[in-house]
Amino acid sequence: MLTVGIIGVTGYAGSELFRILSRHPKVGELVVSSISHSGKLLSSVYPNFIGGPKVKLENSTSVVAASDVVFAALPHGEGDDIAPTCVMIGVPYIDLSADFRFGKDQETYSAWYDSEWYSDMHRKSIYGLPEMNRQKIQAAAKNFRENHEELDDENGVVIGNPGCYPTGAALAAFPALSRGVYGGGTIIVDSVSGITGGGRKPARAFHFPECYDSMTPYKVASHRHTPEISRVFSLMEGIPPSSPRPLIFTPHLAPMNRGILSTVYIPLSAEWRCGPPKPSAPRPPSDAVIEKTARIHELYRDFYRNERFVRVLPQGILPSTGRVRSSNFCDISVHIDHNGLNLIAISAIDNMVKGAAGQAVQNMNIIFGYKESTGLDALPAMF
Amino acid sequence: MLTVGIIGVTGYAGSELFRILSRHPKVGELVVSSISHSGKLLSSVYPNFIGGPKVKLENSTSVVAASDVVFAALPHGEGDDIAPTCVMIGVPYIDLSADFRFGKDQETYSAWYDSEWYSDMHRKSIYGLPEMNRQKIQAAAKNFRENHEELDDENGVVIGNPGCYPTGAALAAFPALSRGVYGGGTIIVDSVSGITGGGRKPARAFHFPECYDSMTPYKVASHRHTPEISRVFSLMEGIPPSSPRPLIFTPHLAPMNRGILSTVYIPLSAEWRCGPPKPSAPRPPSDAVIEKTARIHELYRDFYRNERFVRVLPQGILPSTGRVRSSNFCDISVHIDHNGLNLIAISAIDNMVKGAAGQAVQNMNIIFGYKESTGLDALPAMF
Amino acid sequence: MLTVGIIGVTGYAGSELFRILSRHPKVGELVVSSISHSGKLLSSVYPNFIGGPKVKLENSTSVVAASDVVFAALPHGEGDDIAPTCVMIGVPYIDLSADFRFGKDQETYSAWYDSEWYSDMHRKSIYGLPEMNRQKIQAAAKNFRENHEELDDENGVVIGNPGCYPTGAALAAFPALSRGVYGGGTIIVDSVSGITGGGRKPARAFHFPECYDSMTPYKVASHRHTPEISRVFSLMEGIPPSSPRPLIFTPHLAPMNRGILSTVYIPLSAEWRCGPPKPSAPRPPSDAVIEKTARIHELYRDFYRNERFVRVLPQGILPSTGRVRSSNFCDISVHIDHNGLNLIAISAIDNMVKGAAGQAVQNMNIIFGYKESTGLDALPAMF
Amino acid sequence: MLTVGIIGVTGYAGSELFRILSRHPKVGELVVSSISHSGKLLSSVYPNFIGGPKVKLENSTSVVAASDVVFAALPHGEGDDIAPTCVMIGVPYIDLSADFRFGKDQETYSAWYDSEWYSDMHRKSIYGLPEMNRQKIQAAAKNFRENHEELDDENGVVIGNPGCYPTGAALAAFPALSRGVYGGGTIIVDSVSGITGGGRKPARAFHFPECYDSMTPYKVASHRHTPEISRVFSLMEGIPPSSPRPLIFTPHLAPMNRGILSTVYIPLSAEWRCGPPKPSAPRPPSDAVIEKTARIHELYRDFYRNERFVRVLPQGILPSTGRVRSSNFCDISVHIDHNGLNLIAISAIDNMVKGAAGQAVQNMNIIFGYKESTGLDALPAMF
Repeated sequence: MLTVGIIGVTGYAGSELFRILSRHPKVGELVVSSISHSGKLLSSVYPNFIGGPKVKLENSTSVVAASDVVFAALPHGEGDDIAPTCVMIGVPYIDLSADFRFGKDQETYSAWYDSEWYSDMHRKSIYGLPEMNRQKIQAAAKNFRENHEELDDENGVVIGNPGCYPTGAALAAFPALSRGVYGGGTIIVDSVSGITGGGRKPARAFHFPECYDSMTPYKVASHRHTPEISRVFSLMEGIPPSSPRPLIFTPHLAPMNRGILSTVYIPLSAEWRCGPPKPSAPRPPSDAVIEKTARIHELYRDFYRNERFVRVLPQGILPSTGRVRSSNFCDISVHIDHNGLNLIAISAIDNMVKGAAGQAVQNMNIIFGYKESTGLDALPAMF
Repeated sequence: MLTVGIIGVTGYAGSELFRILSRHPKVGELVVSSISHSGKLLSSVYPNFIGGPKVKLENSTSVVAASDVVFAALPHGEGDDIAPTCVMIGVPYIDLSADFRFGKDQETYSAWYDSEWYSDMHRKSIYGLPEMNRQKIQAAAKNFRENHEELDDENGVVIGNPGCYPTGAALAAFPALSRGVYGGGTIIVDSVSGITGGGRKPARAFHFPECYDSMTPYKVASHRHTPEISRVFSLMEGIPPSSPRPLIFTPHLAPMNRGILSTVYIPLSAEWRCGPPKPSAPRPPSDAVIEKTARIHELYRDFYRNERFVRVLPQGILPSTGRVRSSNFCDISVHIDHNGLNLIAISAIDNMVKGAAGQAVQNMNIIFGYKESTGLDALPAMF
Repeated sequence: MLTVGIIGVTGYAGSELFRILSRHPKVGELVVSSISHSGKLLSSVYPNFIGGPKVKLENSTSVVAASDVVFAALPHGEGDDIAPTCVMIGVPYIDLSADFRFGKDQETYSAWYDSEWYSDMHRKSIYGLPEMNRQKIQAAAKNFRENHEELDDENGVVIGNPGCYPTGAALAAFPALSRGVYGGGTIIVDSVSGITGGGRKPARAFHFPECYDSMTPYKVASHRHTPEISRVFSLMEGIPPSSPRPLIFTPHLAPMNRGILSTVYIPLSAEWRCGPPKPSAPRPPSDAVIEKTARIHELYRDFYRNERFVRVLPQGILPSTGRVRSSNFCDISVHIDHNGLNLIAISAIDNMVKGAAGQAVQNMNIIFGYKESTGLDALPAMF
Repeated sequence: MLTVGIIGVTGYAGSELFRILSRHPKVGELVVSSISHSGKLLSSVYPNFIGGPKVKLENSTSVVAASDVVFAALPHGEGDDIAPTCVMIGVPYIDLSADFRFGKDQETYSAWYDSEWYSDMHRKSIYGLPEMNRQKIQAAAKNFRENHEELDDENGVVIGNPGCYPTGAALAAFPALSRGVYGGGTIIVDSVSGITGGGRKPARAFHFPECYDSMTPYKVASHRHTPEISRVFSLMEGIPPSSPRPLIFTPHLAPMNRGILSTVYIPLSAEWRCGPPKPSAPRPPSDAVIEKTARIHELYRDFYRNERFVRVLPQGILPSTGRVRSSNFCDISVHIDHNGLNLIAISAIDNMVKGAAGQAVQNMNIIFGYKESTGLDALPAMF
C-alpha cells in the first residue's frame, strides 16, 4: 500500500485528489500539506470530508519525506523546488501546475509564466497525457524502479499533468491530427468551463451574483493554455512545436460548477473534404457529408478502442459535461460542416477530474503499474 | 395610442412582447390570442402578470380585426395565413417565426422548413434587423401610410423578425463584412444560448435536472439558423446569398435562462492581417496585433456610433449575457488571434429581447415613426 | 423634475436604485457617490449601465448639496452623519441601512449593531413600510413642505427603509396580526434568500462554487433582522415592542440571485382554530380546514385590496420568487395546517426591489405625493 | 457475490441505485428492468453509464427470477405484486415507493394513496431507517436466513425504504424525540428540495426556465410525506402513531439538483427550556441559551456516536446540501431560539442517496450482514 503525499491539498484540485485517493484501493495513507492552514485538520477546512480519513495539514517537507509518490497542486512556480527534492530522494513527482508541461522549451514557458526554470527537471519531465504518452511514462517508471538505488538525473519521474483545457482539446483532436484528417490551416478551440476552474479564492469574477445566469468569454487570444495546446497539437501531428500550425483558443465561463466543453474546428485534408459540387445557400447535411462523418466516427472509435476513459459516443448522442460529472471520462462526438470543409470534434470532461486530479491519479496508476482505472472507476452521476 | 395585437401570447416570446408592450408609452390597448388557452385571462397562464393590464385570451381573428399592428409569435408555418389578412386590411404585420426571413428564396426555406410558401407575402417581406434594414422598413412604412386607402400587394408591411442566433451573429460580424475586414474563407459562429430559447413546452432536453450544471451542443452542423445567418452575412458583405461564403454555426445550451453569447471567427483580409514574421510557438499578443485590434475596435465604434442598442464595449471589457439581461442591447468586443490571421468578434444579447420581442418592438417603433428606443429604454438589471 | 441623490451607488442596492430611478418619469437628474470609486464613471464600475444616463461618481457632500431627496445605500453606521445634514438643509432622507428602523429603541439597536446613535434623527425617523406607515410618511412630508422655511428638529423627513427579510415577513403576517387571526404563541419565520442579499463584496460564503447547487442556513437564531421583525410584528399587532411575542427567524441561502421566500407559521386564535374532533394520523385537509382557509384568504384579499404592490394570489397558486423578479410586488398565499392550529402565510418578494431599492422609491413617491407606482410599474419578467 | 435486481432502473432513483451498486464490492451482477425501455441497453437511456457494466433492460419477472435481492424503484402501487413473489421465492425485497412505509395502518395509507393494500406484506414490512430499525432488519434477515427452506408468511424480508423528506426530518428530530428534549406542541418541518426529487418525467413544474433562479413552496399542508413523518416521529417518541403530536410539514423547491435541507422546529420540554427572566425585544443568544445549546449538541453527538452516516457537525458549522452531495451522509446542527423555547434542528441529505438509493443499499448491507458502509464510503464531492 502506498503512502501518498498531496502538497496544496486545500485548493480545489488538491481537495479532489484527496477525495479520489481516499477511496483508492492501493493507497494506504494520505499525508497532506497546506501553507495557509498548516496544523489544522483537513476536515476543518473542508467539512465535507468529516467522517473520512482523519488527516492533519502538515508542511511540504514532512509530506515529501513520508511519501512514496507526491502530487503537487500548487500555483505555477510554487512547487519547483519540491521536484528536485523528490527526484533526489527517489520519489515520483506529479505536478498539477503548468511548470512541467513545456519539456525543454524554456522560451515559451518564460513568455507566459514568470517563474524560475529548473533545466534538469524540465528535461526529464513527461507531459502526463496517458493517451499520448503512456509508454514514455511506463519507460521512465521502469527505469526509475530498476535504478532506484543509484539516483541521478536520468532516472527521476516528473510528470507535468496537463491543463484542463488542453486535455479536452487534445483528446478531441488527437485522431484527426495523427491520422491525416487535418489538412493544415487554423485550428480553433472554443471552450466553456465551469467556475471551479477559477479556483477556491473568492474574487469578483467568481462572485455568485456576477456569474449566475450569465456567460462570458475571458482572456480571449491571450490565455496561457494556448501555447500548451499548440505544443501538444504539434506533437500529436508530428511537427516541431517551434513551428506550429495556426491556433485560436477562446475560453468562456458558464454558470455551472464542473466541466469543460470544447468545440474544436479542424480544417479537413483533401482526402477528407466532401464539399458540394457548387456553392449554394446552406442545405441540411448532404449524403457525402453524412458518409464521411460516419467514416471519421469509425476512425475515432478505432483510435480510442483501448482507452478506458475516452468514450467516442454513438452517432446522434452529443457530449454534455453533466454526463461526465465527477468521473475521469472524456466524451467525444465528431461532425462535418455542411460545406464539407471542416471537422467539428467536441469533447466534454470534468475539469477537476480528467482535467486535473483524476488524470493525475491515472498517471500515478501508470507509474506504479496498476490497472489504469484503479480508484477511478466510479460512473458519472449525471446530476 | 395604438391598439396592438399579439398572436401566440402564451409562448415565451409572446409573453415577453406583452411584458414590454404593457409599458410602451404609445400603446393604448393590448389584444392577445392563444390557441391553447383561449377564453382565459392571460394572468391565469402567467401569474407574474397579475396586477398588470387585465386581458383575455381571444382568437387570432378577433385580434387581427381589432389591431393597428399585429405581432405573431407562433411556430413557423402557423401564422402564414394571418399575414395576407393583415396586408389586405392594411395592418402592419411583424412575424417572429422563421417564415418571412428568407425574402424570395423559397428553395432554401423549403429545404429547412416544412410549411407552405406565400409568394406574395415573401416578396414584400423585409428582414427586420434595424441596424441593416432600417431604411427599407421606413420606406415600406411610408409607402404604406401614403397608400393606405388603395391596398394592394405593393404596400403592405410584413416584417420577418430575425432569429435569436442570427441577430447576435450578424451584429458581431456586420462591420467586418461590410468594411473589408473579412478576407474570405470559412466564418465560424460558435454560440451559447440560455434555455428559454427552447420555448415553454416541457421536454426532456429542457428538464431541469438534465440541464442544470451541464453544457451541451446540439444540432451541430444542422441547425435551421445556419441558412439565415448565411443569408444575412451575404447581404451584409454585398454578395449573392445563393453563392455565399463557407459558414459553420454551432449552437450550445448553457444552464441559464436568458442570453446568447456568440463568438464569431472571421478570417482577416490581407489589409488587416498582422501575423508574426516567422512561425513560432504562441506568444502573448504582439504589438502589431495590439495595434490592429485597436484599429478594428475604432472601426466598430464608428460603424455603430448612431445605434442606440449596439454597445461596442471599451477595450478590456468583455461581453457577458448577464449585463444585457432583459434589455434590447447587443454588447460587442473585438480581438485578433496571436497569429494575426482572424478577427474574433464576440456579442452578447438577451435572446428574448434583442433576439426576439425587443427587436420586434424596435421594428414597430420604426414603422410608426417613433423614437427607436420608445418602450425599450430600461437599463439591464445585471442580476 | 427632481434631482435625486444616491449615496453608495456602487453597492447592489445602490445600483438597483440607479436602475429604477433612471427610468422614473419624475426624476430629472441623478447625482451619485461612491467612496471606493470616486471620480470614475458609474458605467466603468457597472458596464451594464453603458448607454444609460452618464453619471460620474462624486463624494457624498456634493450629492447632498445637489439633491432634492437623498437615498443612502450604505452599511449601517456609515450614513448616520448624512441624515442630520439632510434634515438641516431640508432634504428628505431615505436610509436603506438598519440605522433608522428602530424608532426610539436605542437599547435594542445597540444590542445588535455597533454604530453611534443619533437621538434626534431616530426620534423623527419613520419605518418605511408603506403598507403600514403610509399615513405617517404623508403627514411628515406634509409638515415638511409646509414648514420648509423654518427647519428644525420637528419637520425633517427621515425614512428607515425596511430590511429585506422583515418586508417579506411583515407583509405575510400583517392581516393575521392586526385582525385577530393570531392567537399568541411562537411565530416562526422561515426564509430563503438569493445570494445578492450578501452584497457585492466577494467572500467565501458567496463564492460561486461554494453556493451553486447547495442550500444552507446561516445565523440561525442570531440574525440581526430578528429584532426588526419582532418590532414590526408588535406594532402590527398593537402591543409594545418591548414586550413582544415569541419569535423565531431562520434565514437560508439558496443558489439563485434574486428573491426572498418567507414561510411564516402563525398560531391561530380560538376563533380561527379548526382542529379535528379527535386526534388521528394526519389526513388530507378537512372540510373545516378548507372552509377556514377560504375565509382567511378572503380576509387577506380584503385587507390588501387597495395595495398596488401586494398580490394575494388566487387560491391554488403559490408564490414563487421568479414571478416577482425585478418588480416591486409581494405575492402572498395562505394555508392552514391539517390540525387546524396554525396559519401558514407565504410571501415572495424580490429582495433587491420590494426588499430594498423599489420600496425606497415607493417611499419617495409617497413623500412627494406621486402615484405610488410611479417608476415601479414594470411587470415581473418571470425569467 | 450477489446478483442484484433493480426494477424501474430508468427512473432517477433507479439510476442512482445502478450507479452505487455498480461499484459495490459484494455485487457480482446487476439485472435491471424498465417498462418503458425494455429490450434496450441501459446506456442508451443513460449515456452517462457508457463504459460501465453492460446491462440490458429486461422485464420485472426475469429480474426477480435471477436476483438474490430485489430493489423496486417504481411509483407507489406499481410494485405491489412483486413483493409477494419475492417473499414466496425467498428473495429480500427493498421497496423505494411509499407502499411499505405504513406498517399495518391501511387507513392512513389509503387516505393518501390510491393503490391496493397487500395485508400480508404490510404486516411484515419494516420501515427501512437503519438508525431507528437496524435491529428489526437484522432480526428479520436472520430469521429469513435460518428459515430459508420453509418459506411462509413469517420469514420474508420486506423493507419500506423511507421517503426523502421523512429521512431528513426524522434524523434531525430523533434524539430530541426519544430523549425528552421535546415537550409537546406543534413540530414544524420546513424543507427545501432539489428538483431531482420531482423525478425524470418532464413537466411544467420542472421545466428549466420555470425553476431556475426561483424558489417556490408546493403542496403546503397537503404533502403525502406528512403522515409518514408523523408516524416515524410518533414511533421515535414512543407514542401511538394513531394519536400523534401536531405536525406541520412544508416542502419547497429550490433551483438546484440534489439535496434536501430540513429545518425542524421542536418545542422544548420544561427541563430544556431556557427563556429570559422577563420578556424584552429580541437579544443575541443569552448565556443560558448558549449553554443549553451546547448540552443538546453533546446529546446529539452522543446519540449518533456509532452512526457512520450521521454527522453531527461541530458547533459553528452549519449543514449545507452541497457538502453531502452524492454521499449517504446526513449532516445535522442544533440551535435554540433566543427565547429559549424551541430546538431548531437542521439536517442536510442528498435526496437521491440517503433520501433514496443510498439508504436502500444501506438496508441491503444490513440484511446481508455486510459492513453498513460497504459501497457507500465515497466522500462527498462538495461541488
